[in-house]
Amino acid sequence: MGQSTSSLPSVARLAIAVAGAGLHEITDRVETWVEERGLAEGLCTLFICHTSASLVIQENADPSAKRDLEQWLNRLVPEADALYTHTLEGPDDIPAHIKAALTATSLSIPVLDGRLALGTWQGIFLWEHRHGARTREIVAHLGP
Amino acid sequence: MGQSTSSLPSVARLAIAVAGAGLHEITDRVETWVEERGLAEGLCTLFICHTSASLVIQENADPSAKRDLEQWLNRLVPEADALYTHTLEGPDDIPAHIKAALTATSLSIPVLDGRLALGTWQGIFLWEHRHGARTREIVAHLGP
Amino acid sequence: MGQSTSSLPSVARLAIAVAGAGLHEITDRVETWVEERGLAEGLCTLFICHTSASLVIQENADPSAKRDLEQWLNRLVPEADALYTHTLEGPDDIPAHIKAALTATSLSIPVLDGRLALGTWQGIFLWEHRHGARTREIVAHLGP
Repeated sequence: MGQSTSSLPSVARLAIAVAGAGLHEITDRVETWVEERGLAEGLCTLFICHTSASLVIQENADPSAKRDLEQWLNRLVPEADALYTHTLEGPDDIPAHIKAALTATSLSIPVLDGRLALGTWQGIFLWEHRHGARTREIVAHLGP
Repeated sequence: MGQSTSSLPSVARLAIAVAGAGLHEITDRVETWVEERGLAEGLCTLFICHTSASLVIQENADPSAKRDLEQWLNRLVPEADALYTHTLEGPDDIPAHIKAALTATSLSIPVLDGRLALGTWQGIFLWEHRHGARTREIVAHLGP
Repeated sequence: MGQSTSSLPSVARLAIAVAGAGLHEITDRVETWVEERGLAEGLCTLFICHTSASLVIQENADPSAKRDLEQWLNRLVPEADALYTHTLEGPDDIPAHIKAALTATSLSIPVLDGRLALGTWQGIFLWEHRHGARTREIVAHLGP
């Protein structure tokens, strides 16, 4: 078992279906993909191919932390704001771009002893900033 | 055609001339650099060597999205604020540091089929937070 | 001297003791670790294993820039806010998560000529968002 670094990198497109706005945990999905590659040490990078959704690592234990984080950002970047001119696609459009710019488009997590080096309470989340169900794409890269 | 991963990494300094504050698209510049390396799969990382300018991936289709994003951040972090004490270099100095801290200093984008795995509407931007023309430096890294 | 890329990646856990909230510079610590590896070109990635502390690259020359940045974020995300429901661990708990989500969990810095390609005024900081002394963990990765 175990893969030599000569077969790296591995790059894959992961499709993530989301039901609507908010934090969607993808930790298991990413961990499974990494562990299937059988690499002892390396670096896993996630890149989200959108400008109205983003990535964040946050606490995955208590749902109230997730809820407060979502509500706080919704208040900072409300849908109704006289400043906006980019409004053709609906009231959730430009706030989604702003929220994405304030959070992460790419995240890199080291792999140690064959596993992502996440802290005890850390989960990886896709943060959907638009309403409505859709499928988002993340490109995952695993390198030495 | 096609480079073996044994000649990696490639690291280069890219000088970017900007005319003033705002989002400056650098997608073509980065894509050209990556495609010249002839790598099928890998990871491209951009790092900006400044604390008053940053990097962001945002929509490159409609200029109103860019304008709203700039104006929104300018309102969140105004130049006149009684809180500031770091004012020797001018009123745009500490707001520039704050804006840089809220956005990205490094970005990593996977390479797939010899191209950056950007989504359809994604552009890479240098976000200049200070007034006036200057030349900024980005270090680009391409690895396996 | 100089290490061949075949002995990469190097991955290490760095324990960082902090006395309380604020920006704690870790540039020397990271530079020493990287330079000991003897690599000419590559990529150094830092990942913080917490959801209430983060990473930021900022000016390390003038302490007033650091102070203004801390104070500005403290005002944006105050401890007392009727929105919060996640309050069991104390008034600094959910603000710490929000501040961490607005800044970086991972940072990648290219290595060029055997050194981190930091700009003249750039320092790497662990941004502690909770009160009180504790030890935080960063996982450092050095790859080709």
